Amino acid sequence: LRIDCISTISETFAPDLAGKTVIVIDVLRATSTMCTALANGADSIIPVETVAQAKLAAKGEDVLAGERQCKKIPGFTFGNSPLEFTEEAITGKRIVMTTTNGTRGIQKAAKAASVIAGSLLNAGACARAALQLKRDVLLICSGTKDVFALEDGLCAGMIVKELRSIAKEAVAADDLAVALEGAFHFYSEHLEEALLDCQSGVRLSSLGLRGDISYCAQRNTHQTVPIIEDGVLRPFEFRQGLF
Amino acid sequence: LRIDCISTISETFAPDLAGKTVIVIDVLRATSTMCTALANGADSIIPVETVAQAKLAAKGEDVLAGERQCKKIPGFTFGNSPLEFTEEAITGKRIVMTTTNGTRGIQKAAKAASVIAGSLLNAGACARAALQLKRDVLLICSGTKDVFALEDGLCAGMIVKELRSIAKEAVAADDLAVALEGAFHFYSEHLEEALLDCQSGVRLSSLGLRGDISYCAQRNTHQTVPIIEDGVLRPFEFRQGLF
Repeated sequence: LRIDCISTISETFAPDLAGKTVIVIDVLRATSTMCTALANGADSIIPVETVAQAKLAAKGEDVLAGERQCKKIPGFTFGNSPLEFTEEAITGKRIVMTTTNGTRGIQKAAKAASVIAGSLLNAGACARAALQLKRDVLLICSGTKDVFALEDGLCAGMIVKELRSIAKEAVAADDLAVALEGAFHFYSEHLEEALLDCQSGVRLSSLGLRGDISYCAQRNTHQTVPIIEDGVLRPFEFRQGLF
Repeated sequence: LRIDCISTISETFAPDLAGKTVIVIDVLRATSTMCTALANGADSIIPVETVAQAKLAAKGEDVLAGERQCKKIPGFTFGNSPLEFTEEAITGKRIVMTTTNGTRGIQKAAKAASVIAGSLLNAGACARAALQLKRDVLLICSGTKDVFALEDGLCAGMIVKELRSIAKEAVAADDLAVALEGAFHFYSEHLEEALLDCQSGVRLSSLGLRGDISYCAQRNTHQTVPIIEDGVLRPFEFRQGLF
């Protein structure tokens, strides 16, 4: 098993994607929210790039979700806070979602063999899904405004650790994956503090969204892995008895 | 004090450099070799980009040093192994040097207020020099073929740690610097193994250059900090009694 890692979406190029299982990581908050929404019973999520595309894609009972500059888009039912996506609010609903970075990452990865949405909430489940998919793995840290984001890097490091702990074959990781694995181990005991102190954390806290950070800093609380098929995110179906 | 970090030379853009002290890091092996050569009494080092430029720049007693694909350039006196640059071989000599990445990094950083060459050998001394220069710091991990290299990232993390330990003011580090600081701490007890296992390490070992890796994995063995002035690297002059 080979694991490569890319430090921001903007460094993602099509040749890196071919034949891979891509795990797009946007811990604060898009991929944490996608995981939560599907775990809480949403039927599916349609990630789109622009507000206009979101409005066009939403039909009938569909709900609109998304943010710009960390704030809910005017007229949308939901923003991008995972705490909004409760069972009561979204069971059975189809969600059309647009965020600054997370949905962009998923669209940019579209040429990969499989694209899943990773977060700290489901890092272990992502590793199990990736092994079941039996392909090399590319971790894409979304970053913020084309700059590396600590929370995404630490999540990438956690997924490398989880993959190593369950893979039956040898694992070859590129240098960035190895560095981030070390960083995850080092900050592991103080993960919530690390997320509060990093650049996205400081920004979200200043907007009164500290609760989102604490929620997104939880590890392996969810077994749901959003996977995209024909442009739609649904829960990955695990084969029984594999692990 | 603000510390930013860039993961490869190719991501270095002029606006990032303005007014900064840039520390260019190419642990395997250019900046380790530059530090060693000046510590062992070389008069100065002229870093140039191409083999042709090196031949043009070398006058009289000057010695030519450099590599392509990790191998000594035909007709040059030295390759890029720090072990070649002994006192006997280079005391008083002016060295004209071209390497694939390290000299390129130094040239690309030329618009910064100051440019110094950092390695594990002189990480602590680089931190002291940077504080004496009283400017914000930009760490450039050279990388290999435009890809992040673990050895450069761990050295960047060590320099962040050294800066934090001696700075009297608050230190604000960007997310990549924080991640690499954590990675350095995690691999700190096994630094030589980490360098042997990373991508440059595997390549150098396969060329019989394992001794270079062990040498370059040493920490704070040198107090010499190469700094560029008018295109020439010479030892930074520390003011007395500052630390």
